[in-house]
Amino acid sequence: VLKLKNFKLTIEYNGTNYHGWQRQHNSITIQEIIENAIENITGEQVIITGSGRTDKGVHATGQAANFYSNTKISAAKIPHALNSKLPKDIVVTDCQEVEQSFHARYSAKGKEYSYQIYNNTFNSPFLREFSWHILHPLDVKTMEEACKFFLGTHDFSAFKSSGSSIKTTVRTIYTFDISKEKNLIRITTSGNGYLYNMVRIMVGTLVEIGQGKMSSENIKKLLLSKDRSLSGITAPAQGLCLEKVFY
Amino acid sequence: VLKLKNFKLTIEYNGTNYHGWQRQHNSITIQEIIENAIENITGEQVIITGSGRTDKGVHATGQAANFYSNTKISAAKIPHALNSKLPKDIVVTDCQEVEQSFHARYSAKGKEYSYQIYNNTFNSPFLREFSWHILHPLDVKTMEEACKFFLGTHDFSAFKSSGSSIKTTVRTIYTFDISKEKNLIRITTSGNGYLYNMVRIMVGTLVEIGQGKMSSENIKKLLLSKDRSLSGITAPAQGLCLEKVFY
Repeated sequence: VLKLKNFKLTIEYNGTNYHGWQRQHNSITIQEIIENAIENITGEQVIITGSGRTDKGVHATGQAANFYSNTKISAAKIPHALNSKLPKDIVVTDCQEVEQSFHARYSAKGKEYSYQIYNNTFNSPFLREFSWHILHPLDVKTMEEACKFFLGTHDFSAFKSSGSSIKTTVRTIYTFDISKEKNLIRITTSGNGYLYNMVRIMVGTLVEIGQGKMSSENIKKLLLSKDRSLSGITAPAQGLCLEKVFY
Repeated sequence: VLKLKNFKLTIEYNGTNYHGWQRQHNSITIQEIIENAIENITGEQVIITGSGRTDKGVHATGQAANFYSNTKISAAKIPHALNSKLPKDIVVTDCQEVEQSFHARYSAKGKEYSYQIYNNTFNSPFLREFSWHILHPLDVKTMEEACKFFLGTHDFSAFKSSGSSIKTTVRTIYTFDISKEKNLIRITTSGNGYLYNMVRIMVGTLVEIGQGKMSSENIKKLLLSKDRSLSGITAPAQGLCLEKVFY
């Protein structure tokens, strides 16, 4: 029996110029660009499976994906081969041959995301494609108090955009941290999974807390309400980065 | 006697898309873009004086410049007014009315620069326009030892590109630091002035030391030699950032 090899890729990308991860008609996406590069080096038309979609403008330092191939190029050489064909804003940083059953989405045990807020009078010419610009100073201390209520296992229905069909809205958040250095507020979180737009709605809600529009205790009520209309806005895409996928 | 007001600007820019600071024929420069924005808001054609030129691709978080104007717009409102006309990669972060004699170049007491090196197998889709990509690991500890020899007052002829007419090649370096976080090596230096391409040649020489091509003690010999041909290459422009100008 001929068995195709299963390759796992780790991918870093600047999402600014793409319509997100997932292949679409009439729009350039990261999935399509990588599939074309794989065809270019292996001669095989493949479909890659990502750990999940990222939206238009969202970045990644550690997206994961897998594909099956008959190629004789070794896993160790695949990153160099692919990077020679890929545009400079998409970089394959690692490739491993994995067991047949490995599936980038279903095998994922969790994810880590970061979100950046540039909190200064004028936007930054360096960070504007990698952060949400908020003019008035945010109360970061209150945001830190608030974010602790996200930790643990909860029904996150109040922090989910409609548009994805999922079995359960219960997720477990392992870590949620906020730090500030100069004018840059950096939020990082890891958990066993995130609902559609969940990190961006969490951040949008924390910003309203940092602006004094909501109290930090409110997070508890929002979780119990399961009502998306009560939580904050969806923070803009360009501040978000998929840092790691855990397997 | 009508006296024009003298305004000092602090300017942050992403130099990627410009042919440097200084106005040129047939190329878009930062000076020209800012002069056009000033004309746009004041109705006056002005010439702005920068603290010094920055080359094509070099960035700034704290460039300084001054211009004389009869405008009734207050200094406090000038940044907002200019930023509404400027492209997003050039931001005026501050404006102060200063004494008549203030001259952004001649009044400068010193400058601070930073230089970033991305030291990793593959280049970064985020940092590639803001750093020099060096594939093989550099010996940062040896580079740190070496850079101490730059401190103090020396004739920096060996670290100067030809092309500028200057009275003296003696400069005083106050600080010179190297730090590494993950794959990013960050070099910062402050001094009373820098010769043409001096920071970039210092960095190019330190990289050769970090690659084991030169010993750290060699810096002393290079300073005494006053011979540009013996020092390292000129590090690429995009890693360099003018952080501050001291007055």
